[in-house]
Amino acid sequence: MDYPSTLLANAVSQLAKLPGVGNRTALRFALYLLKHEKETTFQLAESLVNLRSEIKFCMVCNSISDTDICEICSNKKRNSAIICVVETIRDVLAIENTHQYTGTYHVLGGIISPIDGISAADIDIEHLINRVRKGGIDEVILALPTTVEGDTTAFYINKLLQNCPISISAIARGVAIGDNIEFADEVTLARSITNRLPFNELYR
Amino acid sequence: MDYPSTLLANAVSQLAKLPGVGNRTALRFALYLLKHEKETTFQLAESLVNLRSEIKFCMVCNSISDTDICEICSNKKRNSAIICVVETIRDVLAIENTHQYTGTYHVLGGIISPIDGISAADIDIEHLINRVRKGGIDEVILALPTTVEGDTTAFYINKLLQNCPISISAIARGVAIGDNIEFADEVTLARSITNRLPFNELYR
Repeated sequence: MDYPSTLLANAVSQLAKLPGVGNRTALRFALYLLKHEKETTFQLAESLVNLRSEIKFCMVCNSISDTDICEICSNKKRNSAIICVVETIRDVLAIENTHQYTGTYHVLGGIISPIDGISAADIDIEHLINRVRKGGIDEVILALPTTVEGDTTAFYINKLLQNCPISISAIARGVAIGDNIEFADEVTLARSITNRLPFNELYR
Repeated sequence: MDYPSTLLANAVSQLAKLPGVGNRTALRFALYLLKHEKETTFQLAESLVNLRSEIKFCMVCNSISDTDICEICSNKKRNSAIICVVETIRDVLAIENTHQYTGTYHVLGGIISPIDGISAADIDIEHLINRVRKGGIDEVILALPTTVEGDTTAFYINKLLQNCPISISAIARGVAIGDNIEFADEVTLARSITNRLPFNELYR
């Protein structure tokens, strides 16, 4: 598309780099900013520059943080003997939102995926192993995606941690709360039967 | 949602102001920027600041432009005796993309919509009327949305221009190219029959 302004063309091409944003949406964003006060744009630009230039990665769990050690890792009320291993910071946010977990996290920053050229060395597994070896850890919970890549990564971590005196668990898989049994896929349903629980434990 | 970083929370809340972007998408954008080189973010921020602070509105047609008079209005090859009246710059881009129109434009910047509190005074109609009264205009093409608001605006402009020695036209409405007749809505189909053309004219 030809734009009547190189300033606009430039902004559109930059906005279109955002994930899931095509030229049409990028144009919509740009025209929205043009329609609103200058401050809106300046604040947006400033917040992005600040985010990118000042954000840190927690030295303990690899999650993003404003400080060297993130709020969760530095919170004395949290149980630092439990580590929940997740793929991305998005998973940390999702689990935090449940308000059910009081341990700490470890963000791998990816999962092993040969097809995408991501090997075990590309993600933060070594850091996790060192953290466990240092001691003081009772349990590692694997909360990785239920995909071939997620399972591969979980098996790999499980193998590396075999000699450590800790328990290794994985989050429960089964029919989602609110879902009809008839619409659950076969694999999920099969697993939910295999991993059935004593009724009283289900509503702990 | 609680974010582990105020920098992140700030960026997400700013990004979520963009049209059609919720917190979840804003977070996806922010994490995308964090995952990529700093330059990506800095270039994006710079392009937005430049766009917002340096863009101008064409003194003739009210379209956006890098200069006081836009590329279309200052292009001597374009027929300045024809003005195509559109709602937004987006419509200019859409019509330009057809490569079928060689006249100029007039961007109203909105349409009359009492329900949204937009009256004739809020959009750039006066400027258009002055442009026509100044002379040198043969035709005004109304290319406004086929909605109650678009029709109201078209009727209003048509009325104001009644005493001017120009022809006023509106873009053709009918069954879209490639559409099946059976799936066209009744109003469109009815209009396409009423406004039928001699066969030879259709394929001019």
